[in-house]
Amino acid sequence: MRKVKLLLEYEGTAYLGWQRQPQGLTVQEVLEEAIRRVTGEASRVVGASRTDAGAHARGQTAHFRTNWPHSVESLQKALNAVLPPDVVVLSAEDAPDGFHARFSARSKVYEYAIWNDPVRPAIERRYVWHVRRPLDIESMRAAAHALVGTHDFAAFASSGAESRSTVRTITRAEWRREGRRLVFTIEGQGFLYNMVRAIVGTMVDIGRGRIPPSAMQQILESRDRRRAGRTAPAHGLCLLRVDY
Amino acid sequence: MRKVKLLLEYEGTAYLGWQRQPQGLTVQEVLEEAIRRVTGEASRVVGASRTDAGAHARGQTAHFRTNWPHSVESLQKALNAVLPPDVVVLSAEDAPDGFHARFSARSKVYEYAIWNDPVRPAIERRYVWHVRRPLDIESMRAAAHALVGTHDFAAFASSGAESRSTVRTITRAEWRREGRRLVFTIEGQGFLYNMVRAIVGTMVDIGRGRIPPSAMQQILESRDRRRAGRTAPAHGLCLLRVDY
Repeated sequence: MRKVKLLLEYEGTAYLGWQRQPQGLTVQEVLEEAIRRVTGEASRVVGASRTDAGAHARGQTAHFRTNWPHSVESLQKALNAVLPPDVVVLSAEDAPDGFHARFSARSKVYEYAIWNDPVRPAIERRYVWHVRRPLDIESMRAAAHALVGTHDFAAFASSGAESRSTVRTITRAEWRREGRRLVFTIEGQGFLYNMVRAIVGTMVDIGRGRIPPSAMQQILESRDRRRAGRTAPAHGLCLLRVDY
Repeated sequence: MRKVKLLLEYEGTAYLGWQRQPQGLTVQEVLEEAIRRVTGEASRVVGASRTDAGAHARGQTAHFRTNWPHSVESLQKALNAVLPPDVVVLSAEDAPDGFHARFSARSKVYEYAIWNDPVRPAIERRYVWHVRRPLDIESMRAAAHALVGTHDFAAFASSGAESRSTVRTITRAEWRREGRRLVFTIEGQGFLYNMVRAIVGTMVDIGRGRIPPSAMQQILESRDRRRAGRTAPAHGLCLLRVDY
């Protein structure tokens, strides 16, 4: 059997996230169903990131094993012909035998987009969190600095998270403005469950002036989830890239 | 009665275009229904452009008459609270008495977006025409030059168009590349029914090398609709701005 690595883009609006759920449709499920239709095989697909319900991906990476006898290009085309319009295989390639979409990942890049305007968006509404009150991007940038490095992110871990270490390394945490859109880019080797969304929720409290930028460092050091802000909604989140 | 001018953004996917239709839902209809719910009045709304079924707008402009006794800001908020998520009032202001959304318009700017890649888009799919084969943007730019000026655009008028003059003045016709996205911007005082989409369809034939860039001038001069390319799909089209 060969191992195939897929690069995937999807709009998460219609899905309960990446990972198979008894409660409803997930991206993993529609992908495994597409593979079954194309190859006749019941493959299990492993994704790099368990993206949340409603979150999007421009560079989710996944792998699966198959006896597909033709080229990876023909496999990609066949999958795209049967996948729904909101999921697409951007590329397919043969992966080295030791490759694992989740465990081989060196780093992941997420983007979180905020629509910062008194008026709600219509065209962008599926991809941004709408925050009406003006946000001070300089305060949010100052707060983002505190995230870079190796820290215990327990304050930004959801209570439902697994009990393993909550120490993670963040290599990049930046805000940029594109008109009414504020975009946060965060890169790291791994992330706790809901960590990016809890960080964004806290930074919005800082951008609104409810707490000072220095609070980020204090919340981080407290390791207390109750100190952080609310979890930002999933539909502003997009998995941009996984590096190996 | 006062006259109110509205700036509107909408995603056209769910609508049979701007103008009221017995066959199904239109943007004009949902806007008039929102006005009725908010003001209690049965107003008729006049839009600057009769955008096509499936086409979008970031700057449709409309006017209507109302006895609304409060501020235009409160009217805007009230409308946005009852409008569906895919339609939003970006701004509302009192218009001078002689103002007419269609007849006072000095120029309109449309954008048409193409996704030029062998792989179909998932996230952008509602806003771009997917063209798999590589397009030569330089040829399309050369063809676009021929459009600027005052010409008889009968070759790009749909057969269903009204029988008035087919002479129009185009002041800008440009292509730009944004990664896999090719975006055409066209500005003019007025446009014939389906004119932008017929022009884009013809330019895609040029970009694919099926006809030379010089064909644009010849098709224009022929005034023969059968000479132009097929009409590009509506969902790539967006009314960007109306100037008064």
